[in-house]
Amino acid sequence: MVSDQARFTARWARAQAIMKDYRFDLVLVSPSSDFFYLLGQPGHASPRLTLLILPAEGRPALLAGALEMPGYAAWADDLRLLPWRDEENPLDVLRRAFGPVSVSTIGVSDRLWSVFLLRLQDTYRAARWYPATPVLRTLRTVKDEAELATLREASRRADLVWAAFISQPVAGLTERQAVDRLEAWLAEQGMRPAFETSVAAGPNGASPHHTPGDRVIAAGDALVCDFGGVLDGYCSDMTRTVHIGPPSESFKTVYSIVQRAQEAAFRAIRPGVRCEEIDAAARWVIETAGYGPQFIHRTGHGLGIDIHEEPYIVQGNRQPLQPGMVFSDEPGIYLPGQFGVRIEDAVVCTERGGERLNAAPRELTILD
Amino acid sequence: MVSDQARFTARWARAQAIMKDYRFDLVLVSPSSDFFYLLGQPGHASPRLTLLILPAEGRPALLAGALEMPGYAAWADDLRLLPWRDEENPLDVLRRAFGPVSVSTIGVSDRLWSVFLLRLQDTYRAARWYPATPVLRTLRTVKDEAELATLREASRRADLVWAAFISQPVAGLTERQAVDRLEAWLAEQGMRPAFETSVAAGPNGASPHHTPGDRVIAAGDALVCDFGGVLDGYCSDMTRTVHIGPPSESFKTVYSIVQRAQEAAFRAIRPGVRCEEIDAAARWVIETAGYGPQFIHRTGHGLGIDIHEEPYIVQGNRQPLQPGMVFSDEPGIYLPGQFGVRIEDAVVCTERGGERLNAAPRELTILD
Repeated sequence: MVSDQARFTARWARAQAIMKDYRFDLVLVSPSSDFFYLLGQPGHASPRLTLLILPAEGRPALLAGALEMPGYAAWADDLRLLPWRDEENPLDVLRRAFGPVSVSTIGVSDRLWSVFLLRLQDTYRAARWYPATPVLRTLRTVKDEAELATLREASRRADLVWAAFISQPVAGLTERQAVDRLEAWLAEQGMRPAFETSVAAGPNGASPHHTPGDRVIAAGDALVCDFGGVLDGYCSDMTRTVHIGPPSESFKTVYSIVQRAQEAAFRAIRPGVRCEEIDAAARWVIETAGYGPQFIHRTGHGLGIDIHEEPYIVQGNRQPLQPGMVFSDEPGIYLPGQFGVRIEDAVVCTERGGERLNAAPRELTILD
Repeated sequence: MVSDQARFTARWARAQAIMKDYRFDLVLVSPSSDFFYLLGQPGHASPRLTLLILPAEGRPALLAGALEMPGYAAWADDLRLLPWRDEENPLDVLRRAFGPVSVSTIGVSDRLWSVFLLRLQDTYRAARWYPATPVLRTLRTVKDEAELATLREASRRADLVWAAFISQPVAGLTERQAVDRLEAWLAEQGMRPAFETSVAAGPNGASPHHTPGDRVIAAGDALVCDFGGVLDGYCSDMTRTVHIGPPSESFKTVYSIVQRAQEAAFRAIRPGVRCEEIDAAARWVIETAGYGPQFIHRTGHGLGIDIHEEPYIVQGNRQPLQPGMVFSDEPGIYLPGQFGVRIEDAVVCTERGGERLNAAPRELTILD
């Protein structure tokens, strides 16, 4: 399960260094992408409390149900293991291990369940509680070489899925059947879906989060396909819009605006540029073409262990890009009652500018 | 997506009645099993905040990203819809809709992410925050007839999966291949796995939460198989232990103790009996046979939309059973280095006592 423990213990040390900057005494991480980032295994989010506990200094600890502990046996030298039994209160075990922690500043991972946070707040009443986001975000948004290699491969395999999809006619399939086809090819590439695969035909494409249904794909439909897979814990995410049969002039116009907007955002990528500037680059193209009100979402989101993570490419986010940040570039135009167009690639910020992780053609593709 | 909206609005009214008993001013429910229970759709747990908001009186509201709102269009008459756009702070939208909520008591669903609870606590500083568990637990632990019908069918299909599994030799498969076989049959029954399917061979069976691996199943192994599927949002969960080839006398002895313990817990089920008494009934059989220290977990857990939910069948839980409560009956004995035995059925408490939802044989089965 753990390929290289040193890789993870180095991450703990970096997290502890950042904790000192933020004056966190403890950071509590529940099973989630943060947990996966720090331990290389996802853990088990359940009513049985599991927590990785990072103190500002010294050896981290793992609190987990006694039944789960065998799964962490490989960490016995690195972590202080704190098992609790079904008939015990896990917070009693925590309190015995760390003392009363009378006045302290405690960070919790984003996805810790509230039922646990409320119990923790009741147990450590004098503590101040904050999201541990600043500690973990700083680490997670900048991908290391091993992470980048996995993300590149996950996107390369998504490209292969897309190539297989467009090699066959789709008219006559329902949206749901088209989804099944994409997911079968994801499975063939060794990936489970990273999120709910979406195929939206005709006017359904005007809803960016359409739930695929029984609509039969037919000539005259634009088809928005949004999919991705998980490889070794890391996500791919791509969208292509194709047209079934000859497209109208208005579709071709809108398609080319979205394509230019996607390119404009891509060309704006370089270290130091603020996330909102990338969003603005895409938005400017679409607004000057007169479709501003029809671009109803942000330009992108970070991509990694989570399908949506920092950095968000959105108005108001003044975070500067750094080399190693990976995110989606996915502007769109949505015309209710008619069609939608979205083109999405995963991209990474490098020292020299943006690099696309997807190589599938972005030019308008016509299918039967 | 919503088969019968009246069924759900009736649940809101019951939740609001219980809220008054607990003096909750608001209950906030994030996408989770609670959300599914109240809306019949799972929602989308993501960094884009979605909340179903139950006030103590009057029409509930739904706060969701504008992109997600089309998925809730069917509720436009029943819910006050509060969309927020990517460039907005969802808590500003909430505050505009509900005012400052100056001093109040707010319940939050168990699985609301801490990052959202901390922001809410920062927004409504004078409020008192509690888990909404008492409100939602009271409703969810007692299943209605429609829920029971779904749970019965999910367990019936799990029985069919098991019948298929034991109809073929398993010696020579790895644990992982045996898992794949069980999951393929679950899929054939129209179910995705309700949790990580577990197959543990030989000494691996002594770890109740063993992660299946490359161990090849061979004559002389006991095989602990724990699996279940999800049907229309409701879970099945069953465990059977079989032996590959002729078993030893010690295995037969341990198996029969577990079988009697499982039966003793089942016979103890009737309305008014406390959960811990069901646990004690199984534990007494195992302890008097001298294996008390080897029964290292609780006897069971509630089963419904979540695979682990209330009521927990565990020492210290003085909650009395009510008709309609569904839970697992799954004692086990674990002998490190040798083998484990666990037998698990889903059961429901009825007016007349326990009813098993699983009909698969519990007698010792010998496989090739």
